[in-house]
Amino acid sequence: MTLYLEDKPNDECGVFGIYGKGVDVAKYTYYGLYGLQHRGQESAGIAVGNGDKIELYKNLGLVSEVFDETILGSLKGYISVGHVRYSTTGSNSVINAQPLMFRYLQGSVAIAHNGNLTNAQKMRRSLAHNGSVFQSSSDTEIFINQIAQYGQDTIEDALMKCMIDIKGAYSLVIMTEDKLIGVRDPHGVRPLCIGKRGDAYILSSESCALDCIGADFIRDVEPGEIVIINEKGIQSLKPMMERKRALCVFELVYVARPDSIIDGVSVNKARREMGKQLFREYPIEADCIVPVPDSGIAAAIGYSQESGIPYKFGLMKNRYIGRTFIQPTQELRDIAVSLKLNPIREDLEGQRVVLVDDSIVRGTTSRKIVKMLRKAGVKEIHLVVSSPEIIFPCYYGIDTSDKNELIAANMKLEEMKKSIGVESLHFISLEGMLSACERDPGDFCAACFNGHYPVEVTDQNISKYDLEGGKV
Amino acid sequence: MTLYLEDKPNDECGVFGIYGKGVDVAKYTYYGLYGLQHRGQESAGIAVGNGDKIELYKNLGLVSEVFDETILGSLKGYISVGHVRYSTTGSNSVINAQPLMFRYLQGSVAIAHNGNLTNAQKMRRSLAHNGSVFQSSSDTEIFINQIAQYGQDTIEDALMKCMIDIKGAYSLVIMTEDKLIGVRDPHGVRPLCIGKRGDAYILSSESCALDCIGADFIRDVEPGEIVIINEKGIQSLKPMMERKRALCVFELVYVARPDSIIDGVSVNKARREMGKQLFREYPIEADCIVPVPDSGIAAAIGYSQESGIPYKFGLMKNRYIGRTFIQPTQELRDIAVSLKLNPIREDLEGQRVVLVDDSIVRGTTSRKIVKMLRKAGVKEIHLVVSSPEIIFPCYYGIDTSDKNELIAANMKLEEMKKSIGVESLHFISLEGMLSACERDPGDFCAACFNGHYPVEVTDQNISKYDLEGGKV
Amino acid sequence: MTLYLEDKPNDECGVFGIYGKGVDVAKYTYYGLYGLQHRGQESAGIAVGNGDKIELYKNLGLVSEVFDETILGSLKGYISVGHVRYSTTGSNSVINAQPLMFRYLQGSVAIAHNGNLTNAQKMRRSLAHNGSVFQSSSDTEIFINQIAQYGQDTIEDALMKCMIDIKGAYSLVIMTEDKLIGVRDPHGVRPLCIGKRGDAYILSSESCALDCIGADFIRDVEPGEIVIINEKGIQSLKPMMERKRALCVFELVYVARPDSIIDGVSVNKARREMGKQLFREYPIEADCIVPVPDSGIAAAIGYSQESGIPYKFGLMKNRYIGRTFIQPTQELRDIAVSLKLNPIREDLEGQRVVLVDDSIVRGTTSRKIVKMLRKAGVKEIHLVVSSPEIIFPCYYGIDTSDKNELIAANMKLEEMKKSIGVESLHFISLEGMLSACERDPGDFCAACFNGHYPVEVTDQNISKYDLEGGKV
Amino acid sequence: MTLYLEDKPNDECGVFGIYGKGVDVAKYTYYGLYGLQHRGQESAGIAVGNGDKIELYKNLGLVSEVFDETILGSLKGYISVGHVRYSTTGSNSVINAQPLMFRYLQGSVAIAHNGNLTNAQKMRRSLAHNGSVFQSSSDTEIFINQIAQYGQDTIEDALMKCMIDIKGAYSLVIMTEDKLIGVRDPHGVRPLCIGKRGDAYILSSESCALDCIGADFIRDVEPGEIVIINEKGIQSLKPMMERKRALCVFELVYVARPDSIIDGVSVNKARREMGKQLFREYPIEADCIVPVPDSGIAAAIGYSQESGIPYKFGLMKNRYIGRTFIQPTQELRDIAVSLKLNPIREDLEGQRVVLVDDSIVRGTTSRKIVKMLRKAGVKEIHLVVSSPEIIFPCYYGIDTSDKNELIAANMKLEEMKKSIGVESLHFISLEGMLSACERDPGDFCAACFNGHYPVEVTDQNISKYDLEGGKV
Repeated sequence: MTLYLEDKPNDECGVFGIYGKGVDVAKYTYYGLYGLQHRGQESAGIAVGNGDKIELYKNLGLVSEVFDETILGSLKGYISVGHVRYSTTGSNSVINAQPLMFRYLQGSVAIAHNGNLTNAQKMRRSLAHNGSVFQSSSDTEIFINQIAQYGQDTIEDALMKCMIDIKGAYSLVIMTEDKLIGVRDPHGVRPLCIGKRGDAYILSSESCALDCIGADFIRDVEPGEIVIINEKGIQSLKPMMERKRALCVFELVYVARPDSIIDGVSVNKARREMGKQLFREYPIEADCIVPVPDSGIAAAIGYSQESGIPYKFGLMKNRYIGRTFIQPTQELRDIAVSLKLNPIREDLEGQRVVLVDDSIVRGTTSRKIVKMLRKAGVKEIHLVVSSPEIIFPCYYGIDTSDKNELIAANMKLEEMKKSIGVESLHFISLEGMLSACERDPGDFCAACFNGHYPVEVTDQNISKYDLEGGKV
Repeated sequence: MTLYLEDKPNDECGVFGIYGKGVDVAKYTYYGLYGLQHRGQESAGIAVGNGDKIELYKNLGLVSEVFDETILGSLKGYISVGHVRYSTTGSNSVINAQPLMFRYLQGSVAIAHNGNLTNAQKMRRSLAHNGSVFQSSSDTEIFINQIAQYGQDTIEDALMKCMIDIKGAYSLVIMTEDKLIGVRDPHGVRPLCIGKRGDAYILSSESCALDCIGADFIRDVEPGEIVIINEKGIQSLKPMMERKRALCVFELVYVARPDSIIDGVSVNKARREMGKQLFREYPIEADCIVPVPDSGIAAAIGYSQESGIPYKFGLMKNRYIGRTFIQPTQELRDIAVSLKLNPIREDLEGQRVVLVDDSIVRGTTSRKIVKMLRKAGVKEIHLVVSSPEIIFPCYYGIDTSDKNELIAANMKLEEMKKSIGVESLHFISLEGMLSACERDPGDFCAACFNGHYPVEVTDQNISKYDLEGGKV
Repeated sequence: MTLYLEDKPNDECGVFGIYGKGVDVAKYTYYGLYGLQHRGQESAGIAVGNGDKIELYKNLGLVSEVFDETILGSLKGYISVGHVRYSTTGSNSVINAQPLMFRYLQGSVAIAHNGNLTNAQKMRRSLAHNGSVFQSSSDTEIFINQIAQYGQDTIEDALMKCMIDIKGAYSLVIMTEDKLIGVRDPHGVRPLCIGKRGDAYILSSESCALDCIGADFIRDVEPGEIVIINEKGIQSLKPMMERKRALCVFELVYVARPDSIIDGVSVNKARREMGKQLFREYPIEADCIVPVPDSGIAAAIGYSQESGIPYKFGLMKNRYIGRTFIQPTQELRDIAVSLKLNPIREDLEGQRVVLVDDSIVRGTTSRKIVKMLRKAGVKEIHLVVSSPEIIFPCYYGIDTSDKNELIAANMKLEEMKKSIGVESLHFISLEGMLSACERDPGDFCAACFNGHYPVEVTDQNISKYDLEGGKV
Repeated sequence: MTLYLEDKPNDECGVFGIYGKGVDVAKYTYYGLYGLQHRGQESAGIAVGNGDKIELYKNLGLVSEVFDETILGSLKGYISVGHVRYSTTGSNSVINAQPLMFRYLQGSVAIAHNGNLTNAQKMRRSLAHNGSVFQSSSDTEIFINQIAQYGQDTIEDALMKCMIDIKGAYSLVIMTEDKLIGVRDPHGVRPLCIGKRGDAYILSSESCALDCIGADFIRDVEPGEIVIINEKGIQSLKPMMERKRALCVFELVYVARPDSIIDGVSVNKARREMGKQLFREYPIEADCIVPVPDSGIAAAIGYSQESGIPYKFGLMKNRYIGRTFIQPTQELRDIAVSLKLNPIREDLEGQRVVLVDDSIVRGTTSRKIVKMLRKAGVKEIHLVVSSPEIIFPCYYGIDTSDKNELIAANMKLEEMKKSIGVESLHFISLEGMLSACERDPGDFCAACFNGHYPVEVTDQNISKYDLEGGKV
């Protein structure tokens, strides 16, 4: 599993919710999560409420592995919340799977969270001083405990207060016994949108999941907005003073599915435009354009269109690596990259190739691909990247490696070029990337590129492993 | 699974812990839990700490189904806590599996609990008012949250305070990063004992689990005692004023394994003596004595010895029914009882049989067995029971049906006799049963027989399902 | 799994079949096999025919593990054949699971076999010379191929000819598209009986499986008989000249379930009588009688009755060891026997015990039990065995170890006594054992005791592993 | 699973073998099969021989699902044969999984087969008359039984004789205890090639599997050739008179992986050239070219290059549908196609699209895709297909539907256009397609397009289900 993703940033989660009387909400959530599977392959969970009580099932695995007809059939009701989760090896335990479910003074709640908090340590310490306990390493328990601290309030009031206390990136889908609630952080770092199918309302991380269940896109949840869905329809609360918008630009570059539209921006178009912009910035003379599949495809098409240089298949990705795939041992270490990616020699032999990738994190995979292309007879490799150099860590839910491992934070361009082994290496300019995104460039978080963190980061030395094993 | 147990009281759990440097504690806990498997077949879990952090694995199933070499191998350390759990159908979710693990102000803790609290509703409400959340329907979360309320205190102090706040039956095995702790409620309702193998100390619900790992029995944990095991050895705290001892007599009658010795009483001997006492109370003229296997065997041997009437095999129990056994549908409903229990016709035909059972809860299984014996040609059936009529509910962790379903609470002896269909029906006297137990009769809880509840019951209409789905 | 059985002979299989229009034959077969589970725990399989075609499902595991509602539901028809199989570790592959299904000139056939052939090598070689292939190491393929050699004949004629060609012990349950057939070898070494429930006819290795499905016992299939069951009812063919009856006496001693009646002999009674006879042969002065559970129970009861010495529980058997149980590693090797069997110290301490076992094969388990009893404080151990010394190998389907491992074939009684570590050791006399069996002593095969092989053994050095890997 | 493939022809299998002393052959076969996974996802199997005996493991599922470290680790030796199998629903039983293993007069053999026989009925009948039995519905048993008929001969001689008797398409990889053998039918319908890594020799359906294990491509096995690999290296036998070459052109159009080279033809180049040829035959005026992923991609790139019309992403394929995916029920039937394929609206809205697919079998999927594209706002859809109309059934191993279901066999072009709902529909000409393939057009089998069957078809009304349930 990690084979593919070893050198790519990892988004943490996809969230989904539906409210629909007379509708098999568990099944819709199943298909919705299936459409969000690219956001997390480690665990999947679905909670369903029937107005009286909430049932929850979650486990490690893909959506299609976790659920079967029997389990889905046992989840009966008209409100549902679902979650898919990605996590790096080591903490892959069902205890961290979501949705989390809890009871407190006001009743039962299930909650699904995408994002990362930036004052988690401080909040945890403060909650612990008030007697809170934490059963997992998930940030989401901070929301749960803080909501419970406001146990005398309605859930809506509690959530508004939590938005004042808790800093960070969060898109939440929450259900009580009788309503579905969506919350997006004041900067709107992670996406969240609203859809409708018949009388049923849907909340989803990305619009592609709406397409998967035949629902219409209504609108995005606004930064800082709370939407409450119940039998009266949708209500909106905007408790917070308006902040600077800061949609994670990496959602557009890499995380989201190309057929999604996020805050008005078509992911596919943004990527294609980044490819075009790359050519405008770096008009390389070459015989063909080859993408690193799958996330480099749209940018490669753009580069090809803008340059007129033919687009080629070039690299074949194997679709059949599953969770249980046996990693090659030492004797076969040299074939590791051939298992996931194969060069199509006929496209490559003797060619001057522009290789288009979406991002470079540690550079290790790039190095292997380049070696493989050389072996396939490529004459020149010009690696163009549709995002700038990543030199700052992300505190908002994208799991880039820590700063010591970021190649661009530790090498100059020339060094990187040599290290990766290409004739030339070009990163798109920050302005160029943002200009491809069809929104005011100021509407995005690009902290990993420019170090401007739009959301206050209280915790220092944040590491997801800080949370495990030690004191609060 | 439920096939066997449908008409027997169900104990809730077995707990186990070990502290031993240089010892494969996970494996010892595995075998220890295996020796306690009769106390719970729904889920199993093991937590292991290495002084630095605690790892936990738990799942639904038998000990041998939940763990494999890989999982056990990944649980490395020198302190371990384990748990097996029984639960009635409906709430069998991994969320309720134990040990529970949590972090609070003082660090990480894993906890395993056998018993039932009697002021759980009140405690839960009070904790919720202070902002506590509950993620499962388990009483054990009350301990967790209450400990966290005393987060400024050491764990020992917190536990002493909890013993004042929380009422009920509880044997707890707890681990922090660097110590193993055993707690037994002030009345000593549930058993808990201490063992030793080499330098390693062990805590266990029953002594039979000590035998399983080749450990020596040291002593029982005293009612109201807290024992702390760390590198300095064992320390004992006795914070509570001494209360009336109240060991659940049902542990001796049905729950415990015959090779266990609990608070000085040999389970096997107690049962055999009950059988002897039964004959003294009811000297029936018959051709043979037949036990309802397995729990009636020891008493049947006793009855046979005292009476001189030959003991016979009589009923064959099928060992191979597993979790996934397919229950017979309507067409085959008549064979249901034949799947678990088969009469040995040769032993029974034309005989006047004394059938010895340990208890009668709802009477449904007795009725089926009697019908089966008749079909096998038995001439007379005299059913003798080695515990008195159960007419009061248990609030301390034995899952007898509610009062409406208790046959003895709703019928007179004569009616029961007819309903079950036997020539005669005899329950041992309360005094007779207690006299078989080698301790002062006042040392036992016999509330289900006599309604004298030694531990205060605050909650009314307690039902384990109250806790699910609704408000706290 | 092997833990229990390590020192007991292993029977190879249980077979079952049913013909009944309008009956859910797959489910009956499921429950029937469940009643025969003691005859084989390695694999289970069910074939069902609807008059048109035959569907088969089989896999490794217990009946309740192999089948679920979905699989059973997919097996629709009115004829069914089922099989449970035991096999020693090493050859436990689904390829050897039964029933085997094949098509040949006359159509489709499914076949289930209990027993062992004695001219298998010769038959295999002869068939291979005619172009036959063998896909498993099972003897049953010899029947299949030989039937196909008579492909021009009806299945009945082919079977009659096969009975002339093929030597050995076999009870077969066979189905074609439209009939159910039972075959028992000319000496009747393995059991096979006929039952009826409503209009449905049943064939089963033991009568206990009839009880499990509420069917009535009709009669045993006679040695050398072929019974054909179809819409016309039952027909019987007896193609062979009558031979000496030779029912395997080990079926009565150990293999069969006590509630079965085989060729008119009650298993339970035979075992009890063996116990009585043991006392008559060896009237030991002792304080109590303790069985090695489960197979020693009936004989221990008999010994107790005849001697008047009290019967005691003594040894507790753990029921929860499953296929996936983790065997103790070196460090814990000393506890291995405590995991499956536990002494009830209270019954044993200071006692002079008569320990009753059904048979001794290699003596290894006996040695461990004796050691355990000593540790529990037993004063004297007198081991009495309800079968004579096993000194010859079995070629007819009981998997005793080879001659080099048979303790009684390699030691004198006095040596054995010392080796096992008991005060005295007594085996029942051959005459004594046979006299307990309620039939002419000449009706049994006792070759493993006396070396008189009733069925010709052509193959030399038979080993089940000869068949694997090499040439035919 | 079938969701994707429902309207595509299904190839039956991929075969792989390796001979290499001192090499972990099981692991190489695992990775090799993983590289052939696109040829069959129903079952996977690996047989390994150590010169003495052959061990086999196979099961239903993907290669990565069937094997784990323990299983692979238990397959020790220096010769290995592997197989992946596709099959339509209904006959997906482990009994049909390959390799098949058998013993006959000459010893043990494992065999893996890709292809389909054309005189199977006749052969089966003739073999049955000689006493052969068939345990599965696989054609491969015909080879097994016919080899056994020549049991007096060496395996090489037997295979040469079989090539005379048995008609059809077959690429076989066979192992005996001490050699690896590859066989390709006289017309070379299915591919088979030879590779080398270090001293180890490899046989594989496609060259892409050689790349996966870092082996070099040596050459294709010739039509009618038998290659024998043992400690002496490679030997070649060509027993047959040379026949017309007849490589299945569908391997190039759809089945094979684009990075494979088959009989000297680059699959990727052939597909791209088909796309170019399509434009030359049908120069459509349009805004963009969109492929039906994945098999239409290369042709779409070719069409785009030749026409200068921009290539677009257009359709997003979901990678995460697994075996256990729950198919939508009636209520959600309308979303079925959205689960596997999603339109990228931004690429499509208002566009005149040339949609490139590799083939049309029944037309059902095309119809759904067209409907989906309309909904996404496409203005005009011109469907161009890189293979001609399929109007004849395939008897050589490609599982197209039967003639009644082939849309092109039952409708004229104009009707098809209407039925599918496109502005225009164009199939490449047969000559055009063959000219794209870099070989003499006479070297291919194009029977499904032109009805010229190069290999004699004896069986009439062949259906894979004929073989199940009935007589031979």
